[in-house]
Amino acid sequence: MSDAPRFAVLLSGCGVYDGAEIHESVLTLLAIDRQGGTYRCFAPDVPQMHVIDHRTGEPAADESRNVLTEAARIARGKIEDITAFTPADFDALILPGGFGAAKNLCTFAVDGPTCAVVPSVEAAIKAAHGAGLPIGALCISPALIARVLGPVTVTIGADAGTAEAIGAMGGTHRVTTHAEVVVDEAHKVVTTPCYMLDATVSQIAEGADNAVRTLMGMIGKG
Amino acid sequence: MSDAPRFAVLLSGCGVYDGAEIHESVLTLLAIDRQGGTYRCFAPDVPQMHVIDHRTGEPAADESRNVLTEAARIARGKIEDITAFTPADFDALILPGGFGAAKNLCTFAVDGPTCAVVPSVEAAIKAAHGAGLPIGALCISPALIARVLGPVTVTIGADAGTAEAIGAMGGTHRVTTHAEVVVDEAHKVVTTPCYMLDATVSQIAEGADNAVRTLMGMIGKG
Repeated sequence: MSDAPRFAVLLSGCGVYDGAEIHESVLTLLAIDRQGGTYRCFAPDVPQMHVIDHRTGEPAADESRNVLTEAARIARGKIEDITAFTPADFDALILPGGFGAAKNLCTFAVDGPTCAVVPSVEAAIKAAHGAGLPIGALCISPALIARVLGPVTVTIGADAGTAEAIGAMGGTHRVTTHAEVVVDEAHKVVTTPCYMLDATVSQIAEGADNAVRTLMGMIGKG
Repeated sequence: MSDAPRFAVLLSGCGVYDGAEIHESVLTLLAIDRQGGTYRCFAPDVPQMHVIDHRTGEPAADESRNVLTEAARIARGKIEDITAFTPADFDALILPGGFGAAKNLCTFAVDGPTCAVVPSVEAAIKAAHGAGLPIGALCISPALIARVLGPVTVTIGADAGTAEAIGAMGGTHRVTTHAEVVVDEAHKVVTTPCYMLDATVSQIAEGADNAVRTLMGMIGKG
C-alpha cells in the first residue's frame, strides 16, 4: 500500500461565477500531484443556485445545471457524489473556491452568516474534522468552513465584509496577501486567499502549492 | 512598452469531452504567465457540436451551449471573439486541446481528414501563420493545424488513426511520449501530446511549459 497522502477535493461546479473557480481547482490538483499525493474529486448532487453567462456576467434566464455534473468537467469525468466520502479513505480534505462554494455548497452569497449548508457537504466537512483530517480551503471557501466548524481562524484575504461575516459565524479572520497561508493548528484548518484578491494565475498556483504543502506537513507523510 | 511576449490563446469551450480541455488550458495560461508572457483568450462565437454530460459521458439530449460563452469560464470572463484577433497585436498563437478542438473549431472528430474548419478559426490560424507568428498546438489541436496549413510536421502522441489522418491532410506525424515537443522550424509550429496520452496533471503542466518555452525561443524575446 502506498504512503502517498490521499486528498479528497470538494468541487462546487465549473466556473468562477456560478461554480468552482477553474484555475484554483486545476492548480490544487497539480499541487497535490506534484507533491506526491493522490486525489479523488467530489461534489454534491444538487442543482446550481443559477447559471451565469461568463461572457456577460449576467444570469442565464432559462438554464439550470447540476453541480456534480458540471464539476465532472474539471475532474475529466472522474467525479464522485460527496455522500460517498469516507474520512478513513483520506488524509486530507481540500476545497478550492469560486462563487460555487458560496452559492452551491451553502447559501453564504445570499444569506451571509446565517447561511444554510447543503447537508451532504456539512456532513462531509464534519466527518473529516471529526476524524482528525486537516482541511484546506481556498478563496471564499473558508467562510463555509467557519459556518460549519465555528471558532476557526482563517483568511479570505482582505475583504472587510466577508471578514466581518466570518466573525459573525464565530470565526476569526486574519488579513493576508497573495499566496500567504493561515494555519489554525488546533482545528487543523489551512486557508489562503487566491482569487479573493486580484491575482495572477501564477499567484494562484503558488497559493495552492503552499496550502497543499502545509496540509502535507500536518498529515505527516509529506 | 513592455517586451513581454504576447500570446493569443484559442479555446474551444470548457470541458474535455465537448470543449477545451480544462487542465491543458489552465496550464497553458500558467506557463505563459510564469515565463513572463502575457495572454488574451479567444474563441469562436459558434454553437458547440453538442453538450456531453461529463459525469456519464453521454450527450445531453436537449441542451445547447455556445463555444465563446463556455470558454469564458476558463478565461474568468476575459474572452474575445476570434474574429477580433489581429496578428500584429501578438507574438504567438497557442491552442490547447480537448475534443472541442476537433468538434467545435472544425469537424475532425466526425469527418476526419476531409473536415471543415470554422471560417473565423481558419482565418485566424492563416493570419497568424502568414504574419510569421509561431503557433503552438496541444493534444488533438495539431490535427486542426495540419488541416489548415497542410505540410506541417506535428505530434499528437502515438495514436495511429489520428497520425494517419494527419498524413492524409498533407502533414507528417512524429511519435512522442509525455511532455515531448515536436518543432517544425520551417512552419514555426510547436506541438506536444498532452492528454492524447494517458497522462497525469503534472505531465500536462510539463508539456504546456515545454511548448510555451519553445515558442518563447522562436519569438526571440524569451
